[in-house]
Amino acid sequence: MSLLVTGSIGIDTIETPFGTWRDVIGGSAVYFAFAASYFTPVRLVGVVGDDCPRPLLNVFDGRDVDTRGLEIRRGSRTFRWHGSYMKDMNEAQTVEVSLNVLAERAAKIPAEFLDSKYVFLANTHPTIQRETLAMLHAPKLAVADTMNLWIQTQRPELEKLLAKIDGLVLNDGEARLLTEKKNLVVAAHDILKMGPKFVVIKKGEHGSLMVSQRDIFVLPAFPAQIVVDPTGAGDSFAGGMMGYLATQGNLSSATLKRALAFGTVVASFTVADFSLTALAAASREQIDDRWQEFKSAMSF
Amino acid sequence: MSLLVTGSIGIDTIETPFGTWRDVIGGSAVYFAFAASYFTPVRLVGVVGDDCPRPLLNVFDGRDVDTRGLEIRRGSRTFRWHGSYMKDMNEAQTVEVSLNVLAERAAKIPAEFLDSKYVFLANTHPTIQRETLAMLHAPKLAVADTMNLWIQTQRPELEKLLAKIDGLVLNDGEARLLTEKKNLVVAAHDILKMGPKFVVIKKGEHGSLMVSQRDIFVLPAFPAQIVVDPTGAGDSFAGGMMGYLATQGNLSSATLKRALAFGTVVASFTVADFSLTALAAASREQIDDRWQEFKSAMSF
Repeated sequence: MSLLVTGSIGIDTIETPFGTWRDVIGGSAVYFAFAASYFTPVRLVGVVGDDCPRPLLNVFDGRDVDTRGLEIRRGSRTFRWHGSYMKDMNEAQTVEVSLNVLAERAAKIPAEFLDSKYVFLANTHPTIQRETLAMLHAPKLAVADTMNLWIQTQRPELEKLLAKIDGLVLNDGEARLLTEKKNLVVAAHDILKMGPKFVVIKKGEHGSLMVSQRDIFVLPAFPAQIVVDPTGAGDSFAGGMMGYLATQGNLSSATLKRALAFGTVVASFTVADFSLTALAAASREQIDDRWQEFKSAMSF
Repeated sequence: MSLLVTGSIGIDTIETPFGTWRDVIGGSAVYFAFAASYFTPVRLVGVVGDDCPRPLLNVFDGRDVDTRGLEIRRGSRTFRWHGSYMKDMNEAQTVEVSLNVLAERAAKIPAEFLDSKYVFLANTHPTIQRETLAMLHAPKLAVADTMNLWIQTQRPELEKLLAKIDGLVLNDGEARLLTEKKNLVVAAHDILKMGPKFVVIKKGEHGSLMVSQRDIFVLPAFPAQIVVDPTGAGDSFAGGMMGYLATQGNLSSATLKRALAFGTVVASFTVADFSLTALAAASREQIDDRWQEFKSAMSF
């Protein structure tokens, strides 16, 4: 079933010990959509300015991504992010960020997208996330991401969102900030009380944790030998997870677990090179092969 | 088959956000032996001074641990360690350490222990580890632990040891120090070139990684809600792992994986309270139940 994603589309500059790439395509919705498109048709909703070089947006050519929701807004400037992993490959330091068009009104959702059953609200202001969700006719599964900024400054709005969604994806630091609990299992249970049916906590190179009323599921990261650029790993993870879920039509424990494993594996491709380079070079068959490899690296 | 362990026996003082416990039993060989005794008879070799309160050593009463190799040396003082987890529950800060008897000659291995087939050389000077191993008649599986101090100051001696052992267990920081490789999979492969057939890298709350020429195996930690005192987690992990291996008589991929999972589960009991309190309260049945729970929390 088709999957809607709203989130950022940006121009990134990324410094790592392996080099610096300037003005490459990035943004949460871009990584998510690209990753999810290996599994299911994706509907992308986002906005860039008219300064965005057209070739950057060609990244979706030949992919099963419907870009009718990609607005190129005249007179606005594209979101830009400059990050550095020189100090810590597991956590980006923001060198510079310009919200630009992201600080304006949200992108419009095309009428043709309003029947979407699966929706991922990538990180943005929780009010926009909630309003986006409210526009959809009958979503079957709504999952959101969030970040420190909203937890700290938009708590009441975030809580309204949490009451409306089925799943929340966030990283370990954000889960601790949201709940003021250090232990991640305890934090996840606190988040469940706020509304979501399941919580996925991303721990970067240390894997992930999924907690629902019914299950606790823990996954290490794929034991990759090459990590060149971690940018987009979390959004690729969410894309792989949601992409797989959209093909299944159920949320059984087994389905959720397999979905998390697909998210893990897709993210392992993303981090092997800058921007979308390595993920774009992967085939669905390679993803499935690595999923099997991951399964056998963990099962006992 | 019976399993020999040599390593430290000490008196610990441990500060955590949950309180401070003074003068409790600790040491690598103690945690290891206790953990392994759930699986197989254990032969303990270690030395304390005559200052060691007798009740501390009663911890093995009723356990399948042969303490004929426990030497109480007259005129010597017991190893003491005072650690704090106030800053970081995943890494102890040493407040004070007194090697005392550990800085003297090694404990003698009783003649009855020399036929041991399984041996764990818990962390100590690599020369002592190598000499201990050389004394055994025909060990079938020899695994060692090490630490930063020896990697930095006894490199040639450590390399001689590595050439003689089947397995090395160490933590992530130590693996990086030993190989000067940041990526743990790459580091593990470098260590394999130094001699061991398999390397287990412990990542504390982030689980573990096992690498051999044949396999890569990754495990998260057990998703525990209560971590009160992480002291001894690594040694309990090694004890559970080696204890299980000693019952199997083979080193197949499947056996090694199950052994690592037992190590993980046993360690999850250890950290739930100070010193050996929580592990000692666990039954073998509870360990097996949690092993199943862990398996289902990971399998997909």
